[in-house]
Amino acid sequence: MEKMTLHVDAGSGYDIIIGSGLIDSAGKYISSALPKAKRLFVVTDSNVSPLYGARLVASLEIESFEVHTHVVPAGETSKSAENLISLWEWMTAHGVTRTDAVVALGGGVVGDLAGFAASTVLRGVGLVQIPTTLLSQVDSSVGGKTAIDLSAGKNLAGTFYQPDLVLMDPDVLSTLPLPVFMAGMAEVVKYGCIWDPDFFDFLSARPDRAALTEDIGHILYTCCDIKRQVVNADERDTGLRQILNFGHTLGHAYELAGNYTEWSHGEAVAAGMVMAAKLGVELGVTVPEAPEKIEAVLAALGLPTRIPCGFEYIERAVGVDKKGSGDLVTLILLEDIGVVKRLKLKKSRVLEVLSAMSRR
Amino acid sequence: MEKMTLHVDAGSGYDIIIGSGLIDSAGKYISSALPKAKRLFVVTDSNVSPLYGARLVASLEIESFEVHTHVVPAGETSKSAENLISLWEWMTAHGVTRTDAVVALGGGVVGDLAGFAASTVLRGVGLVQIPTTLLSQVDSSVGGKTAIDLSAGKNLAGTFYQPDLVLMDPDVLSTLPLPVFMAGMAEVVKYGCIWDPDFFDFLSARPDRAALTEDIGHILYTCCDIKRQVVNADERDTGLRQILNFGHTLGHAYELAGNYTEWSHGEAVAAGMVMAAKLGVELGVTVPEAPEKIEAVLAALGLPTRIPCGFEYIERAVGVDKKGSGDLVTLILLEDIGVVKRLKLKKSRVLEVLSAMSRR
Repeated sequence: MEKMTLHVDAGSGYDIIIGSGLIDSAGKYISSALPKAKRLFVVTDSNVSPLYGARLVASLEIESFEVHTHVVPAGETSKSAENLISLWEWMTAHGVTRTDAVVALGGGVVGDLAGFAASTVLRGVGLVQIPTTLLSQVDSSVGGKTAIDLSAGKNLAGTFYQPDLVLMDPDVLSTLPLPVFMAGMAEVVKYGCIWDPDFFDFLSARPDRAALTEDIGHILYTCCDIKRQVVNADERDTGLRQILNFGHTLGHAYELAGNYTEWSHGEAVAAGMVMAAKLGVELGVTVPEAPEKIEAVLAALGLPTRIPCGFEYIERAVGVDKKGSGDLVTLILLEDIGVVKRLKLKKSRVLEVLSAMSRR
Repeated sequence: MEKMTLHVDAGSGYDIIIGSGLIDSAGKYISSALPKAKRLFVVTDSNVSPLYGARLVASLEIESFEVHTHVVPAGETSKSAENLISLWEWMTAHGVTRTDAVVALGGGVVGDLAGFAASTVLRGVGLVQIPTTLLSQVDSSVGGKTAIDLSAGKNLAGTFYQPDLVLMDPDVLSTLPLPVFMAGMAEVVKYGCIWDPDFFDFLSARPDRAALTEDIGHILYTCCDIKRQVVNADERDTGLRQILNFGHTLGHAYELAGNYTEWSHGEAVAAGMVMAAKLGVELGVTVPEAPEKIEAVLAALGLPTRIPCGFEYIERAVGVDKKGSGDLVTLILLEDIGVVKRLKLKKSRVLEVLSAMSRR
């Protein structure tokens, strides 16, 4: 595939470069984006390190960087305060300076953790994101949010911090297990739902991994381009960016109900989008045919379109959801495929409608 | 004294309010600056809490805030990663939301630690600084730097984060021990040296605590106004803000030599400013009479004007100093009292001159 570049204006501005085999030329792009960097601090996890760690480090050392590598265990539990401190101590023990950079090689967990460390060591050093899952390529590597989890919940401490460069090598997706690939597809479908009906149709016509992989460059570019437009308009997450949460409030309820183990984030969001579309129909906001269309795309990808869930989890997700303020909740609904609408409604009214729907 | 307000443009802009007895009306000012805040998280230390904690909390509760208080042990060791995590866990356990705020009541340690926590919990909540030492009033509460210490050194992790409000009650300075008050005066004299010859003369004419206290409002206002101008011009500390480090590179050597216990930061900076002025004379940058003038003001305040120090500490401070980049070091020198100049010189040249000076 041909190499594609997207420029994001947030922060001091940075490029997202998408291209086959980029892992092996990462050093060249990093030299050019961060000409003053001498030391690179590669953060990766125990799944990704054996697959791509050595290739990345080789491409960095060719460019004469001093490379240090830190491997965290794969999985959400690595997004911890303890790991954040370990990264701080590790980098400062190796003499990090403000012009050096962190290179995050992995999925969302690695990106969030390493990004938080990069944004705070010496009050901020360079940051290069090399996302290796479909989910992190289309979502967490764009937008400048970093985070760790605390006892009280996920992503409760973090920063807004833009990377200096994002490198996406679609070839690395080939080593993702099918369910992990498809969970990322849930977020891809989301972009079609909220922003781009043509892209939604494009996805509808490619109902398996082989067909999607053939056009993966276009898919990554389109998702990042949509997220870029949304983030540019709302870097600090105070308004428009909420539309990226389409399907996520109900998805959160499903994740809670399954104790974060039964359903992946992507699976929960898939079922959450279908339910949010149905809720929109009930509220008279969404055209009646939208839920079926979304269901059809997701089902073709083997994603769940309905997840059984006790009503108490829905109450909790609507009530404690971060988007909530007082008695009101901001719903992200569709008017039609590709046309999103934010609507503030009373929590009690929303729960009443959802309760009636769940009794049917 | 009459109440004075300074507006700082950095971040989304905030006020510094200076006035006698402000501790007792803090609640009113916080309500007005942060109208959406419901919960306030007061962070203070074991010295300040018994003196001013109850008065502050009373003034907040009158305004119907839900107030939580966390007391850390007094002293630099509280600027730790462990305390940062404790603050995160404490606030999230009490249901902090993005519109709530942290209130830092104390000196630089409390301000830096609480500011870091405020800037990162939920990716940033409100922040009110109520500095209670002269040093923190004229220095660390303005400028938006937060930090903790790591094993490898001081202030190695942190953020740039502007407060929403700074409240300065000069009355609280009355409980400061004399050496702590005078250590703060070293930074006050620095502002005269680098920016304002009239202010330098004003200080020269007030050589004791009683005289200084009588005009403390003017002193606080002038220092904050200077720092505000410097910070407005260079929020991210990439250039002009370096002038605030006048006397600090050599001061750092003295702190190192005394193992951070023999000399306070202010004492080390006092002697560092004198030596930096003498270095400037040697290099032909500074007018010959400047060092004596600075010595006279500092000596009248009982501050050290010369600290014996092994040359290896000076080498280390010049070599590892964060301002250094490669072979060059940026010196902050005076042309005359009130006229500062940044000069990039070879480290080897600077050490040669300092070595010759130390042999005399």
